[in-house]
Amino acid sequence: MSGSKCTRLNGALVKQVLDSVDSVLFDCDGVIWRGDQAIPGASQVINLLKQKGKKVFFVTNNSTKTRKMYVDKMSTLGFNAKEDEVFGTAYCSAVYLKTVCKLEGKVYLVGSNAMREELEAVGIQQTGVGPDHISGKQTDWANVPLESEVKAVVVGFDEHFSYMKLNRALQYLTQPGCLFVGTNRDTRLPLEGGKAVPGTGCLLQAVETAAQRQAQTVGKPNHFMFDCVASQFGVDPSRCLMVGDRLDTDIMLGSNCGLKTLLTLTGVSTVADAEAHQKSGCAERQGMVPDYYVESIADLLPALQG
Amino acid sequence: MSGSKCTRLNGALVKQVLDSVDSVLFDCDGVIWRGDQAIPGASQVINLLKQKGKKVFFVTNNSTKTRKMYVDKMSTLGFNAKEDEVFGTAYCSAVYLKTVCKLEGKVYLVGSNAMREELEAVGIQQTGVGPDHISGKQTDWANVPLESEVKAVVVGFDEHFSYMKLNRALQYLTQPGCLFVGTNRDTRLPLEGGKAVPGTGCLLQAVETAAQRQAQTVGKPNHFMFDCVASQFGVDPSRCLMVGDRLDTDIMLGSNCGLKTLLTLTGVSTVADAEAHQKSGCAERQGMVPDYYVESIADLLPALQG
Repeated sequence: MSGSKCTRLNGALVKQVLDSVDSVLFDCDGVIWRGDQAIPGASQVINLLKQKGKKVFFVTNNSTKTRKMYVDKMSTLGFNAKEDEVFGTAYCSAVYLKTVCKLEGKVYLVGSNAMREELEAVGIQQTGVGPDHISGKQTDWANVPLESEVKAVVVGFDEHFSYMKLNRALQYLTQPGCLFVGTNRDTRLPLEGGKAVPGTGCLLQAVETAAQRQAQTVGKPNHFMFDCVASQFGVDPSRCLMVGDRLDTDIMLGSNCGLKTLLTLTGVSTVADAEAHQKSGCAERQGMVPDYYVESIADLLPALQG
Repeated sequence: MSGSKCTRLNGALVKQVLDSVDSVLFDCDGVIWRGDQAIPGASQVINLLKQKGKKVFFVTNNSTKTRKMYVDKMSTLGFNAKEDEVFGTAYCSAVYLKTVCKLEGKVYLVGSNAMREELEAVGIQQTGVGPDHISGKQTDWANVPLESEVKAVVVGFDEHFSYMKLNRALQYLTQPGCLFVGTNRDTRLPLEGGKAVPGTGCLLQAVETAAQRQAQTVGKPNHFMFDCVASQFGVDPSRCLMVGDRLDTDIMLGSNCGLKTLLTLTGVSTVADAEAHQKSGCAERQGMVPDYYVESIADLLPALQG
């Protein structure tokens, strides 16, 4: 197993790899489901891993759902999951602000109601959720009313993103000491049929460009997301497997944190993408080469059922 | 005069430089006015240059005004100007689409009513101006109704910029053959008192990130803006002076087009900024070092009145 990367995971190797880990981290969209449809066999895989004593966690860059919303969706699709096993960027941003930044003050939130709920759950108040359209003249926009309690700007997915929100974020971010946090940098949300809609990365980049500042992101591939799991559950990186469909987020997170990595081909990235990174000779791109790949996580089933 | 750059333009040198040119290009905001206030002495400078037989043109990255709106503002502030002397990015984008792209079809416009008017003036129809808020579910956004006649996406300043507009631009830009034009890349619009609001560059970058494509921009420092003036008026670059307050747009445009360049300190950039570029030893940054600088274009007055 040592040395070679991007190995097809099948046959006896499946059991060998699963025996070598105590914890398995799964990305959600493109891995255990696509949109509202479970990947066939995925729920059996998750539920059997747990029955066999593995710790299973869900790590997703999607910021539009609370932990509770994830568990509800998982339960509907037949997955056996508990709230504290789910690490979405709505929850992780709130934890980051509370535990790492030790934020005292309010958040100006460019994001969803789910983000608001996760912030409130850790005792952080926000302002900004919902529509905010332009009003007044251009010469007044730099003087929009700001709330003096705001000490951080947080950018996640926001279907109500607008010029006024961009402007308000800029005004807050030019105040001394204002923190700047983004959920993730995914530039597109892939949908069925090869279609896509703009991702949080587009919104975050607009705010960063306006503010002439870089945000700290909590989502994959930043190691904070794994730290969040590891600190709560005592996960040993060398005995942990990260399973995902994206090389630039999921596999890179695994590489950044010293985890074993498994690419599943039911989502965004392909084996050809992985091989291109491998052959590039570029050190940074080696982090996007998974240890193993499967067509679908259902390929793990025989080893679990045996 | 040869060799040295960033020379203070005063005394006998003013007349010498003005005698060496037939045409003078002025940026507007920060150069001849700030917001709604004329720079003291600026209108006399412009009007005297014209009386002395110089061709005077106004080149601005601002896309929120038509040529007519500029002439109205100039006239109110005491400047003697005609519509065909004004080259804003609303007008220049329309010319670019008509003459360079030879666009046959409609534009999806992320921009202002002024841009719509300039497009219509050259016979190009648009769709998209005005508010466009999100509706429906995320899974439907990639299937928003698109107009089949649209063959170009144009991004300028748009106070109604929204997630839905970003999404619609992405959907058009993934269609084969769709052109992609931006007015300019200015990341901020500076206002009085050191304040600023987000510029077109932020919006353009969000669309580029979503579409995974680079736009062609028509505004400064891209040479198209000068080409536009030169092709209509037969301007000889070696006998033309570009006057501006921004090193990265105005002075760079002049350098890109072989013009003489004059920085005026009534706007964004400082002499220290110019000197930093000069001392950097970086070839690209040398294009942001002006030949001359003045405190204000009013410093040209004595030579013109003498």
